[in-house]
Amino acid sequence: MPFAVGMKTFYSPVHLRHAPKQEFEGGRMQPAVEIPERAERVRAEIEARKLGPLLTPGEFGNEPLLRIHDPAFVIFLSEAHGAWTRRYGKDAPDAIPSAWPSRGLREQRSGDIESRLGSYAFDTATPITKGTWEAARTGVNTALSAAQALMQGERAAFALARPPGHHASADVFGGYCYLNNIAVAAQFLRDAGMRPAILDVDYHHGNGTQSIFYRRDDVLFVSIHADPSFAYPHFLGFADERGEDAGEGATLNLPLPRLTQWPAYAMAMDTGFERLRTFGADVLLVSLGLDTFEADPISRFKLKSEDYLRMGEKIASLKLPTLFVFEGGYNIEKLGEITANVLEGFEAK
Amino acid sequence: MPFAVGMKTFYSPVHLRHAPKQEFEGGRMQPAVEIPERAERVRAEIEARKLGPLLTPGEFGNEPLLRIHDPAFVIFLSEAHGAWTRRYGKDAPDAIPSAWPSRGLREQRSGDIESRLGSYAFDTATPITKGTWEAARTGVNTALSAAQALMQGERAAFALARPPGHHASADVFGGYCYLNNIAVAAQFLRDAGMRPAILDVDYHHGNGTQSIFYRRDDVLFVSIHADPSFAYPHFLGFADERGEDAGEGATLNLPLPRLTQWPAYAMAMDTGFERLRTFGADVLLVSLGLDTFEADPISRFKLKSEDYLRMGEKIASLKLPTLFVFEGGYNIEKLGEITANVLEGFEAK
Repeated sequence: MPFAVGMKTFYSPVHLRHAPKQEFEGGRMQPAVEIPERAERVRAEIEARKLGPLLTPGEFGNEPLLRIHDPAFVIFLSEAHGAWTRRYGKDAPDAIPSAWPSRGLREQRSGDIESRLGSYAFDTATPITKGTWEAARTGVNTALSAAQALMQGERAAFALARPPGHHASADVFGGYCYLNNIAVAAQFLRDAGMRPAILDVDYHHGNGTQSIFYRRDDVLFVSIHADPSFAYPHFLGFADERGEDAGEGATLNLPLPRLTQWPAYAMAMDTGFERLRTFGADVLLVSLGLDTFEADPISRFKLKSEDYLRMGEKIASLKLPTLFVFEGGYNIEKLGEITANVLEGFEAK
Repeated sequence: MPFAVGMKTFYSPVHLRHAPKQEFEGGRMQPAVEIPERAERVRAEIEARKLGPLLTPGEFGNEPLLRIHDPAFVIFLSEAHGAWTRRYGKDAPDAIPSAWPSRGLREQRSGDIESRLGSYAFDTATPITKGTWEAARTGVNTALSAAQALMQGERAAFALARPPGHHASADVFGGYCYLNNIAVAAQFLRDAGMRPAILDVDYHHGNGTQSIFYRRDDVLFVSIHADPSFAYPHFLGFADERGEDAGEGATLNLPLPRLTQWPAYAMAMDTGFERLRTFGADVLLVSLGLDTFEADPISRFKLKSEDYLRMGEKIASLKLPTLFVFEGGYNIEKLGEITANVLEGFEAK
């Protein structure tokens, strides 16, 4: 009875090597919120509830990664921390850009480390640490392993990847994200002949994922998130972004106001689900951010713990093979509980 | 004998209202280096040496300012600190952006304060404080007053403006600069029928000034600075930037290596002077940065105190009405001395 063992979760302790200490926001250094403890809490809760087996991700090499990311960008990420410490010394703080090529300035993607950081980043909240590259690289393998499980017949799988990925585009990092785990997994499934749809339920718009698929009609992107007119990532995720060229109509943004509660959130999910159905997806990938939670320290929605059971049930109602990929969510105390609620709500249906 | 009173210096204590405490660079908060004490030390030295009268700048209104700067940008600067404290509270640190519209993202020049900051800034070293707007606005009047003195027949004048200006373009601020004092003054002289040339001797490339005049043939821009391949502002100031369209050839960049000393620096000045002569300028504006000094805390050139006398003499050898506008230079102890050396060297010729 293989189904009795529950949903497979893919997890690697390599994520622990990415442990940023601080981020710069609101005019000051703040304690980092995208920290290793996040994934550890979720892992512990999955084990405590016996939701299913915890599996070590496999190795997929560079090919699936380079189907999404620019090679020079990948090389930059792998080299950045070394270049930073050569410039600022071994005891330097984590690498964060402080200047960028704004209007009238010239991108310098192959310049010195400050030039490259400013040319490849879009914020100061996403430090490159000594272990960032290995962790991000393993996060991609984690998502790919979960995708492979679906291809092998699983109804669902959970990629407990860290750092998250949905803010990273083909060649820009930011929003605590370096490599776009879910985009690489979606492309992997697409390359296997499937028709993937991505549902992004993180509080923050998945600007990286949107950008990657914006001109394509073979991967649907639906995002429910805080309106960027007041929320990060500020510069993408507005309702008028619907895709371009071949991708016209294959992007759907559903920005919501501050203090959104479950009833309004569920209605937005229904709106998104209509689009998922007309698109005719045969596999669903969920960017599972848990920062819509009422007690999230950096976000402003008001979903309660039990709402995440409902969210899981609703996602299950689509009756599609489903790949959950871990994204944001920063309330350490409740993060395990609310994440597991989604998975449990899904499994209950 | 009006000449006996020496070079007029324009100065307003309003600059004191711009007193940033910290800047973000190298992955950490650092004590601000572009601080009020800078201009106060220079003022004190000018008074001590009796180089000439200290005059209060006049009021020139918005018209000359808007000949250079985008109106929406000017309005943004005037409103930014208020919008920031409404969002983050009265006790918030100074306003510094933490996210920007990189590749694939959409500028939001009329969005919330985070969106506007990221859309109008190019670094995290240029805090907007409560008094920044008034100080920057007065800095422009300071430069205009000095320009007016030239129009009234003075051989030279010194605008002891603060904050500096040469990194600010028509609609982007950064590099401790908000409004481009020297560009507004150059345009003011141009509008009076003169043919201005700008010589930028700051350690850092004057990217804002260059951008403003890049497509014009009626204002020459010559800059001697640290090679941006290793130095701020990273994204402009390379030798291949020579102007565009009508401005082709009216920009000359002379980037120099680390540890440059006076002999090599003087040769670069000679090269720049050749271009000044063929351009046929009838008025010279000097972006007077003093961060080429050997003991500057953030720079890497090796000019000695007495070299600044030579620099002043060399500039005088051009025999043009000359407007000095204060830019960078961060060695507080010696800043008065080396600035006054330039002016004294000039006056001696």
